[in-house]
Amino acid sequence: MQAEVITIGDEILIGQIVDTNSAWLGKLLNNEGIDIHQIRSIRDTSDDIGHALKSLHPETELVVFTGGLGPTRDDKTKQTLADYFGVSLTHHPEVERHIEQLFSRFNREVNKFNRSQAWLPANCIPLFNEKGTAPGMMFRENGLLIFSLPGVPYEMKHLMEDRVIPLIREKMTIHQEMVHRTLLTQGVPESILADKLQEFEDQLPPDIKLAYLPSPGRVRLRLSGKAPKGNEIKSRVEGQFAVLHRALAEIVYGEGDEEMEEIVGSLLREKGKTIGVAESCTGGYISHLITRVPGCSDYFRGSLVTYAYDLKENLLNVPNDILLSEGAVSQPVVIQMAKRAAEVLNVDYAISTSGIAGPGGATDEKPVGLVWIGIRTPESVKAYQFQFNGDRERIIRKASLMALDILRRALVGKSEFVRTY
Amino acid sequence: MQAEVITIGDEILIGQIVDTNSAWLGKLLNNEGIDIHQIRSIRDTSDDIGHALKSLHPETELVVFTGGLGPTRDDKTKQTLADYFGVSLTHHPEVERHIEQLFSRFNREVNKFNRSQAWLPANCIPLFNEKGTAPGMMFRENGLLIFSLPGVPYEMKHLMEDRVIPLIREKMTIHQEMVHRTLLTQGVPESILADKLQEFEDQLPPDIKLAYLPSPGRVRLRLSGKAPKGNEIKSRVEGQFAVLHRALAEIVYGEGDEEMEEIVGSLLREKGKTIGVAESCTGGYISHLITRVPGCSDYFRGSLVTYAYDLKENLLNVPNDILLSEGAVSQPVVIQMAKRAAEVLNVDYAISTSGIAGPGGATDEKPVGLVWIGIRTPESVKAYQFQFNGDRERIIRKASLMALDILRRALVGKSEFVRTY
Repeated sequence: MQAEVITIGDEILIGQIVDTNSAWLGKLLNNEGIDIHQIRSIRDTSDDIGHALKSLHPETELVVFTGGLGPTRDDKTKQTLADYFGVSLTHHPEVERHIEQLFSRFNREVNKFNRSQAWLPANCIPLFNEKGTAPGMMFRENGLLIFSLPGVPYEMKHLMEDRVIPLIREKMTIHQEMVHRTLLTQGVPESILADKLQEFEDQLPPDIKLAYLPSPGRVRLRLSGKAPKGNEIKSRVEGQFAVLHRALAEIVYGEGDEEMEEIVGSLLREKGKTIGVAESCTGGYISHLITRVPGCSDYFRGSLVTYAYDLKENLLNVPNDILLSEGAVSQPVVIQMAKRAAEVLNVDYAISTSGIAGPGGATDEKPVGLVWIGIRTPESVKAYQFQFNGDRERIIRKASLMALDILRRALVGKSEFVRTY
Repeated sequence: MQAEVITIGDEILIGQIVDTNSAWLGKLLNNEGIDIHQIRSIRDTSDDIGHALKSLHPETELVVFTGGLGPTRDDKTKQTLADYFGVSLTHHPEVERHIEQLFSRFNREVNKFNRSQAWLPANCIPLFNEKGTAPGMMFRENGLLIFSLPGVPYEMKHLMEDRVIPLIREKMTIHQEMVHRTLLTQGVPESILADKLQEFEDQLPPDIKLAYLPSPGRVRLRLSGKAPKGNEIKSRVEGQFAVLHRALAEIVYGEGDEEMEEIVGSLLREKGKTIGVAESCTGGYISHLITRVPGCSDYFRGSLVTYAYDLKENLLNVPNDILLSEGAVSQPVVIQMAKRAAEVLNVDYAISTSGIAGPGGATDEKPVGLVWIGIRTPESVKAYQFQFNGDRERIIRKASLMALDILRRALVGKSEFVRTY
């Protein structure tokens, strides 16, 4: 089954927002075995929406529009869809009642902009929105199933999961099987991986493909299998995935959609251990990653972000003479930061960072991207030096992921595999 | 001039990565006065690339492809473009030399995957890439100007800025003028803004449009003017922008693409003041935002992330009896956190947060989303209570933006305008 996702609104076309909705929709529909062959962003004019509907691939059976359904007057999708279908907007009293109920729950008054959202194209079936005032809409035209959803991500996600997917499951039979398995690697560049995986790629059957998905500090390796039902594609992909996993055992940190911070969190919880952080160049980003994970208070106790020179002395007892002789970006400094953080924060494990995130602050001996990472475990204290490339954002991200991976290796007893590029 | 941006690769279609490149390209081309009427993501097959080229809008003059040019074998764009144009791949020795130079700079060896990147379609003009091994390509076919660039964001950006834009400027004359001006507001929902701006919208001329761009905690208001040259669109948009700014003076925190943390950073630098943070529910995210800004060491000294109950006592002297009687999420706790953080971190301003980011941790009196924010200035200490909605990520983001905005208002002497929803 072929689908297209269409995002409506100038904000994506002029680059004011990033289209995160389509990625989320791609993943969701893909997991349902639906093949998205195109995603597009268009302007919210009847001309552009009409053109998009007319230039669909002939095999398209499902279209999901998002965006352009807010309460304000710059959102024209609803009227444009009505014009396209040649119908008028009609009032849906049950939608208006639903909006009133939502507002009384939030203790807010319904204004006329909110009420106008109960006017919908005559040929649509409204999809009730529990998270906001713009209802979703379903249309069936010429064998096509068309959904139109608001662009606010958490409203759109709710409508997809709770309204659209059940409707799609009801109406479709799917003949193709699709399987994806993703392996997560950290710290080794794409081309070195490709070299290592050449033989593996050569032996892959034509219906299983390997894709490299690099992002700062890591490469995700995705195996995708696609075949008509009855070809055991699932078990064959599993078999190949196991081979891939063994080939890269030293640098794999997880699978699928797991984030490094979730993996580290699960390990800490399993082992009943606690973590704290002493951050300099990463500026709080490691702490943020750890605390993004719900329930992290089970193992995360706190952090000290000692950005200023003298706070490293005063809060973490880094001796002034070491700071003067070795500089803040040095092995003894991150060692002392990790040791002292473990005491001050009263934790089993402490990680520390000090580096030059740039663009300023470099010297002849210490270039931008130089980062020292320290780790204190119940058994020992170690430090590793890295030279990351990229801009400030990438260096902060790479150093933070590397610090969490060093912690992960310590937790699983594989510290010997830390690579220092 | 009409342009289309086309991203190649399954990773966007199956939702494994978010298409940030297209947003960036949209902004860049828009600033050049080029109108992007469509962005799409397609699969990397000759069929799909061919279909995309055939179904361009008849007015399209410029196409930018990104993606699918890496050193690994899953990237098929280059061969597919050659097939489409009916040419073969030819070896470009100057591209190979360039790759060798790049690698010797990074002290890495060139392997055969890297060398294969010097083979390009015979009809292309290569664009040298200083940031990676995949060259960009330019094609001229049937009055169309087509660029193909690697998908790695910082390589793509370099090629656009340093190679593509100068070539476009050389080859095009632009007849339309486009102007965008964006006002940044924080803490007031979209529909309340729409109510307030009704009269303003009614008086806008047809060639100037207002768009609402909401994201967690803030709404960006974009005025866009578009008219043939000679219509003074720039000065007319400026005039409307000034009216909008006055109407919303109380809630505006900035303009254009500025981020809250950049605005706060500039104010602190101007005034020669320092800032520190005591974070609980925001978990390091405020510190991360502040330290994303290059040069922040001029004003940011450090943070204490006191996630665990007892660290609030031990590091920030929050009295145990207050924690027991009022709970960690309370006015006296954030007041004490801000006061003590200012002393420990030795800063002029300190902000503090304590709240329930969820999904766990709520009680009958303290629901998910309840956040107390404290601020200590050289003159006083204050605390504000907020009830944010959304998931964990949104609550952390909204609370952090609000804390920075409270700091901003204190710095510009407008503390009376803090709204507590």
